[in-house]
Order: sequence, then structure tokens, then C-alpha cells
Amino acid sequence: MEAKSNRTELEEFGEFGLIQHLTQNIQLRQPSTKKGVGDDAAVLDYEGLQTVVTTDMLVEKVHFDLMYAPLKHLGYKAIAVNLSDIYAMNATPSQVTVSLAISNRFSVEALEELYSGMLKACEIYGVDLVGGDTTTSPSGMVISVTAMGTANPEELVYRHTARSGDLLCVSGDLGAAYLGLQILEREKQIFRENSSVQPDLEGKDYLLERQLKPEARREVIAELKNAGIKPTAMIDISDGLASEAIHLARNSKLGVNIFEDKIPIDPLAVNQSEEFGMDPTVVALNGGEDYELLFTVAQSDFEQLKSLPHISIIGHMKGEDEGYHIIGNNGSQITLQAQGWDAFLKREQGY
Amino acid sequence: MEAKSNRTELEEFGEFGLIQHLTQNIQLRQPSTKKGVGDDAAVLDYEGLQTVVTTDMLVEKVHFDLMYAPLKHLGYKAIAVNLSDIYAMNATPSQVTVSLAISNRFSVEALEELYSGMLKACEIYGVDLVGGDTTTSPSGMVISVTAMGTANPEELVYRHTARSGDLLCVSGDLGAAYLGLQILEREKQIFRENSSVQPDLEGKDYLLERQLKPEARREVIAELKNAGIKPTAMIDISDGLASEAIHLARNSKLGVNIFEDKIPIDPLAVNQSEEFGMDPTVVALNGGEDYELLFTVAQSDFEQLKSLPHISIIGHMKGEDEGYHIIGNNGSQITLQAQGWDAFLKREQGY
Repeated sequence: MEAKSNRTELEEFGEFGLIQHLTQNIQLRQPSTKKGVGDDAAVLDYEGLQTVVTTDMLVEKVHFDLMYAPLKHLGYKAIAVNLSDIYAMNATPSQVTVSLAISNRFSVEALEELYSGMLKACEIYGVDLVGGDTTTSPSGMVISVTAMGTANPEELVYRHTARSGDLLCVSGDLGAAYLGLQILEREKQIFRENSSVQPDLEGKDYLLERQLKPEARREVIAELKNAGIKPTAMIDISDGLASEAIHLARNSKLGVNIFEDKIPIDPLAVNQSEEFGMDPTVVALNGGEDYELLFTVAQSDFEQLKSLPHISIIGHMKGEDEGYHIIGNNGSQITLQAQGWDAFLKREQGY
Repeated sequence: MEAKSNRTELEEFGEFGLIQHLTQNIQLRQPSTKKGVGDDAAVLDYEGLQTVVTTDMLVEKVHFDLMYAPLKHLGYKAIAVNLSDIYAMNATPSQVTVSLAISNRFSVEALEELYSGMLKACEIYGVDLVGGDTTTSPSGMVISVTAMGTANPEELVYRHTARSGDLLCVSGDLGAAYLGLQILEREKQIFRENSSVQPDLEGKDYLLERQLKPEARREVIAELKNAGIKPTAMIDISDGLASEAIHLARNSKLGVNIFEDKIPIDPLAVNQSEEFGMDPTVVALNGGEDYELLFTVAQSDFEQLKSLPHISIIGHMKGEDEGYHIIGNNGSQITLQAQGWDAFLKREQGY
């Protein structure tokens, strides 16, 4: 293969050469991985633990925009958001598979960047990349990741097992990922109108990182375990607090109260919301992509819970017929609205 | 939801409503499925068996053309080709997850068709659909399936364990799926030039079915087990006999001989090749998508093997330094060429 420039065309490798090239740096870390990439299927051995499996698809122009998402971060994110689902089961992720559809406009170097981000996430979270598929696409890039993990059956935490009176808790802070996206969209718009204007991202690092390189909340799971707290129900926040709280409530056949003044929002996110003329609470409720954990715990765990640094108690579960509500700072009670597909489509069009 | 016509727009469901609607008919059949669709992740319990996992992505305009692929068949095929990889490990498939990217041009009814095909395959092969993701796509449809299965460790058959002198065997017949594709492409071309011309598919059922609705070779695995034969190495034929035979040989650090007159080609495929002015052997070697099993067995199993109805002995493994060859009907020895990414790209442009 002759080096003509810094761009290597996909055609210079065969399909199998390409897969081999991209997967040659994979290190296996999990004792459960008996055979990784290189056969019809990977072979895993969980030795009596239960297996959890989840899958997510990221589509160019829907979930990411290569105009501002660096490929390495994108690879990292594709893995992290899947691991987030595994942690949300209170399980430990162990393996991932990755399928990619890519067009000829990507070079081998671009794919190496993407893979290096994926492998970085695998390294940080201690999981093995054990299989995948790489294929051509007529236009955009599609990344599909499946993650597997394990747990003792008695450790698993589902969505449908919250009880009335349980405390509703959330890790970290909310809304920042959505605001990071809005900043990137704004700068893209400015750049389109005048490509000599450099992006103004000063002081926005936290918001941008929350959007471009989210983390799965492994340390929250560890803290809860160390404190001897097992959540009664848990979900990760991909679609926004409102939507996920309703999921927990509906699946558990309960109602839910969230107190507006308890929702954790970073001061940078508050400021940015005001700059955009948005209500920070609405951003936290509906923004999505925070990948924090939303969970319920028994009231008897309150004292233990209070001492944990990354966790906010934001409300409680109530009877099913009492509905889903947010209690405003002024004492008002507003019905929570789930953001779903419609809002998602609207967001694609600019919110 | 008001019935206005036979077309229901995706927007009429929320995202979660849509997933619930599409997954409501899922029946769980596997004792290992502890929890299917409906939480952050599915929960599986394999009770000490080893797990195998594989993933495949099907992209519109690359792997399928909705102008001639019925959605129900497409759903069926998406599942079957993944199960084929599980059988190629000599394992038993147990669960699948499905991720879909779809644009608004698809109706809910279209997705129901796709799902009904996937669930039909799940029913026939006795596997559970346990999770997935449904997202929007700016244009084409992408289907990503991950399949899991189980085996006792001593039953697994890899690609790299063939031995010199082993017999090379293939199930069923080869080349038909590729010819089916060529027929469909020809009729599409004719239709484009004159849309009043009806497609002429008389007598082509077998070739079309091999392309549009392939099966995984479960019964071959069962026959081998019943006959007490454990292959020494195995792979499924997705890219064509030549490519897969080289995979087996290269992974096992061996060479391989294939005898042209032993390659099983259905008479319909021979006739169709001739109609297209193609060499049937070349079609069988390079056509791909047959999803037959290619495997090696010890010579000591020859007598047992001979009696099996769906299996042809087409060659044998030899030393690595002896290379990869096809022995022609006239005794000529030609080096086998793997078809890979390049050929694949060319095929997209019409072969």
C-alpha cells in the first residue's frame, strides 16, 4: 500500500483487510471473553451470572453532525451510551459489538479515529470489543452498538419495581448536554452564514463535553453499592428527566412528584439557558442525552443517601391515580409531559 | 388513533408507543430469556453454557432494494443471516436484538410488515427478540441485528481448527441467491425503461427465494450431530465459496483444493447462468449470500458423511505452502481468488 498522502482510501484495503486493520489494536480484558473478533461469532462465558444485553443506533444527521462531532469523541460516545444502559440495570458491562455503515467519503484514517475513540471507551470501562460488521453506505454514517454485561440475579434493578413513597434520585446534573448541542448548532449556523467567523466556544467546555463525550455513571453504581443502597428501580436519562421519570412511574404503576428546586442544574447550564432565553428547568426536564441515572430508593435509606456526593433527591413516588407532577418553586403543581418521538422530530428541525 | 386510510404515519405514535406497538406480539420461547423488551437491557441466563454473539447490518441500496424486496421477507432475512453465523459456530441461537433506522416515508403498516417477517423467523428458529432501538433516518433504511446463542464449550466449532487432509464439505447448493439478485436487477431495469412491462419471473421461484428469503442451515447442524460428526472447522457462506474457503484455510494456516465438478449447483442455477452468459462455477465461487455451511471433517468420518443428503464433499485441506486452488473439470489447477470489498463495491455498480 503506497502512501500518497494522509488519506488512505477504503478501497486500498479489502473488506477483510479493513476489519483486520481496525481491530488489530483490540486488547481483551474480560475473563468472560473466550474468543473475540475473527470468527462467525464471539464466544463468551459468564459462569452462572445473568447476562444483560442492550443495543443503540447512532445515525448521522439525527444523533450526530460530523461538522462538529470529532470522530474520536463520536466513537467514545457510541460505546458510553450503551454502557449507560447496562449500568442502569445495576449490572457490569463486559463486551460490546459494533456495526458500521460508512460511505466512500470516509478515509481509513477517519475510521481509525472513530475506532480509537471506541477502544478508548472500552479501555476506560474495562469492556471488550468482540465483534462487528463493517459495510458500505450510500450516504451517511450509521453506528450500531450492542453491549453485554453481567450481574447476580439479586443485584439487577428494573424499571417496574419502584414502590409508592420511595425517594426519586438523580446523579450528577441535567440539561448541560442539550445546551452543548444548541451551542454547536448556533456556531454551525454562524459559520454557514460567514465562514470567516471563528467559533466562540470560550468557557463552554463543560457543556460541550457533556454533549460530545458523555460518560456512563459507573462511579454512581459503585457509590451506591459501597453505601449498601440498592435502588428499587432505575433508568438512565437519554430522553430527558420528564420522559424517564414517567417511564419509571408508568412501569411501576405509580405516580411521581418532582420538586423543581431540587433538580440539579450546573450554574454554567443555568447561565447558558438564560443566554438562549430558555427556562433551565424545561431544559433539564426535556433536554436529554445527560446519561445520568434516575432511580428510586426506600425512605429507610435516606440517611445513607444524603452523604453521597453525586446524588440529588428530587422527589418521590406516589399512587398511580395521583399522576405525574412537577411542583414549582412557587408551589404550583404542573402535570409532567413526556417528550417523545414528536419532540425528537421537532428537535431535528431546531426545537 | 383515527383510521383515515391504510397508511398510519409514524408521528401518530410517540416513539415509545411505536416500539410498544411493534413489539406487542413478541412471544418469548427461550427459558434463558428472563426479561425481554421493556427495560434498559434484556436479561438472559445461560446456566453455565458458553454464549456466542454476532452482529450484521443491512443497508438499503447496498444489501437490499425495497423496489423488489418485500418488507416481510427483508425482516425474515435480517434475522436468518444472523442465525446463520450462530449455527456456523455449531451453537444454538437463543435471542436477537434489532435496531432500525427509518425515515418518515415508511408508514406504521410498512414497519409492521418488517416486524412480522422478523417475528416469523424468530418463531421458526425458536429464538426470542429481546431488545432493540428504533430511530429516525434522514433517508434510507438500516437494519442492525445482533444474535446470541449457546453451546457447550466442547461443541463449538471455530474457523481456525481445520487440519491438513480434512475433507472440505458444503451444504445445499451454491450460486442461486446471486442469480436471483441478477434476475431482480434485470426486471427492475426493464421496468424503469417501460413501466407497462410486467416482470417475467415464471419458473424463477427457487432462485428468487434464495435471494429474498434465505434460511439458516439448522437442519444441517442437526444432521451432522445425529450422524456423530463434529466438523473440525466451519464458516457460513455469505461472501461466496472462494472467499469463505480461503478464510477457513488462512485461519487454519493451511492450503485448500476445491474440485470444480464437485461444487453443488442447482440445474435451475446452471440454466440461469447460461442465460446470463455467466460461468456457473464462477457464480458459485463468487456469488455469495447462499448462507450454506462450509466445513471440514476428518477423513475418518467419510463413510458417515456420504450418507447425509444435504452435504457435498467438494475438496480437501492441504499444507499452507501448497496454496488455495480450484481443480478444473479438465484437470487444470487455478489459484482461488477471494472476492472482497472491491468486488462488493463493483457489484453495487452492476457487477
